[in-house]
Amino acid sequence: MHGDSLRKLDIDQVARIAMGATLLGAGGGGDPYISLLAARQFHAQGGGHANLIGLADLDDDAQVICIAGFGAPTVEKERLFELPHVVHAVRTLEEHIGRKADALIPAEMGGSNSLVPIVAAAACGLPVIDGDGMRRAFPELQMTSFSINGVSASPFVMADEHLNTAICHSKDDRKGEAIARAVCMGMGVFCILAAYPMSGRDAKRVAIPDTVTLALELGRTIENARSGASPIDSLVEGIRANAADIDVVRLFDGKVADVWRSTERGFAIGWVDLAPLDGASHRAHIEFRNEYLALTLDGVPRALTPDLISVVDSETAEPIPTPDIRYGQRVTALGLSCHPVFRTERALKVVGPEAFGMEHTYRPLAELAARHPGA
Amino acid sequence: MHGDSLRKLDIDQVARIAMGATLLGAGGGGDPYISLLAARQFHAQGGGHANLIGLADLDDDAQVICIAGFGAPTVEKERLFELPHVVHAVRTLEEHIGRKADALIPAEMGGSNSLVPIVAAAACGLPVIDGDGMRRAFPELQMTSFSINGVSASPFVMADEHLNTAICHSKDDRKGEAIARAVCMGMGVFCILAAYPMSGRDAKRVAIPDTVTLALELGRTIENARSGASPIDSLVEGIRANAADIDVVRLFDGKVADVWRSTERGFAIGWVDLAPLDGASHRAHIEFRNEYLALTLDGVPRALTPDLISVVDSETAEPIPTPDIRYGQRVTALGLSCHPVFRTERALKVVGPEAFGMEHTYRPLAELAARHPGA
Repeated sequence: MHGDSLRKLDIDQVARIAMGATLLGAGGGGDPYISLLAARQFHAQGGGHANLIGLADLDDDAQVICIAGFGAPTVEKERLFELPHVVHAVRTLEEHIGRKADALIPAEMGGSNSLVPIVAAAACGLPVIDGDGMRRAFPELQMTSFSINGVSASPFVMADEHLNTAICHSKDDRKGEAIARAVCMGMGVFCILAAYPMSGRDAKRVAIPDTVTLALELGRTIENARSGASPIDSLVEGIRANAADIDVVRLFDGKVADVWRSTERGFAIGWVDLAPLDGASHRAHIEFRNEYLALTLDGVPRALTPDLISVVDSETAEPIPTPDIRYGQRVTALGLSCHPVFRTERALKVVGPEAFGMEHTYRPLAELAARHPGA
Repeated sequence: MHGDSLRKLDIDQVARIAMGATLLGAGGGGDPYISLLAARQFHAQGGGHANLIGLADLDDDAQVICIAGFGAPTVEKERLFELPHVVHAVRTLEEHIGRKADALIPAEMGGSNSLVPIVAAAACGLPVIDGDGMRRAFPELQMTSFSINGVSASPFVMADEHLNTAICHSKDDRKGEAIARAVCMGMGVFCILAAYPMSGRDAKRVAIPDTVTLALELGRTIENARSGASPIDSLVEGIRANAADIDVVRLFDGKVADVWRSTERGFAIGWVDLAPLDGASHRAHIEFRNEYLALTLDGVPRALTPDLISVVDSETAEPIPTPDIRYGQRVTALGLSCHPVFRTERALKVVGPEAFGMEHTYRPLAELAARHPGA
């Protein structure tokens, strides 16, 4: 670890990361507000700032641990973010593997799940890695570039705010998800996960780099967009300027005409219908499981997981997580292309529409847009 | 540990223990048949015999670990008993607590759950304690004399036959049950539990002594009863002869008129209706959750948990576990009084009818019988 390669994150940057990660979170990854309050409180109490370290600056033999909130974001909103149990999860996994962590890595970019590792890193006196396992959020344990590239989630630790703790080993990450989801339900449908213990060498091989910085830049973009005349246009331009490899498609502008949601099997599941503001009969329908996973326009797929569907407020360009989407909101649905790691045949078996029980077959965002240029 | 205090269990004795424990299991504790096959196979492969050690012969500073099958007995019947994962559960808990076990103790007396510790002990080269936490079977983790007397189930280990493993700590045993049940569901509704790590001193304080020997004697009683002219009378006499402190009440003779069952929330739940053989209109109704928990006669309670309800075949006096009860069987329902440890106000909150969501208030078997002498 090279001291000069660390970049200190101040609280304003942390807030921007939360905002940008909520856009990348595609509706999931948790509510940034509560985690941000926890971060502010931690800083106000003199808790220090987390340092960001680039993947390339990690020592090969460093011990990396991944940390995240796990469960239904609808429930997370009702349970307080407690720093002690986040630290407890890290410490329990360290103790179990017999090795102290040298750095923490986010599992995903998502509202609270971009912040959990940052606050945990500050509290543990560790750097947080500028990278993650998704460059978006996904609902399940095995849906990471780590797992897809052969790094196991096991052993992993789950802990709730009462310090109820489970240390789990599973034969593969899909079974790990089944056990983790069950434990999470036993703990009340939300808990902290410390998982994917890996070497710095493996982290460089399997993580998606520079995603915390990307979230920071996107957060700044949203800040700027909401003060401009055309927030959505500014946001789209800003995404393109900061992420040349991300296709952005403006999928639908309208208002929320209907929402159905349920907390089931440890997830926040449901759907949203959007109607045009001009009263036309077109309908966009979005299915979600923690994250927005598929958008169809009049029954025809326009964006499918693993590509990102981000729903933003049409007037402020601020992203709206799935637990917060409400009847009557004026929103714009954006499609953002996923990281290429998720577009392989092997990866699509883990994160494609079929993996969520949907009948759609994945086609990239740009291809779906090209098929229906006039829609 | 005193070598001369160990009593070697041969395979015939193990089979008798399984039979007697199935009677004590009150319908639960698992199917003895599969575990007995595993025990026979283990012995046939030269696996050695387990030694039984009396509680009084345990060293105070011995390390005791409790081992049991956990989940729905209906599912256990469909999953093979694999010795390696039983041993794995013991070894994982030993490793986690940093101390080798000196003896294993059964959680409960029940068909397979009397055998799991015996076979595990033989495979681990450890003695098995002549005692348990129930002198019957109960469906939940916290329903033990260990827990009621202040010994925590945590840390506990759950493992399935693929060696998926969870090491859990919970703030109390009721929460531990919620987490264990969830893990068990994540592992497919049956797994092996290693729990209640305790000292020999604590085991002497909190365990119910001599219950393996009791199961052995009751197994012998059933063997003798089924060859006699009046199997049920012989069985009742035999229980009384072997367990002076157990009241026995012959609750109902009849045939199974209706059964409903479901595997839900990690349990085998359901009910049984019994009708008299003479066509009279009386009906006995038995509710079960893994174990038979309440018997009412024409709507009036005759036996309530924690007292035991054992349903036996009227012609062979062999106990019938809840997964095996079928329409048309000719059966006798017996009531056996529970160990006094479960009759305190504190214990009844854990194992009384209300703890299972029933509206009955516990009254001892003898008192319920005295109220309805003619029934």
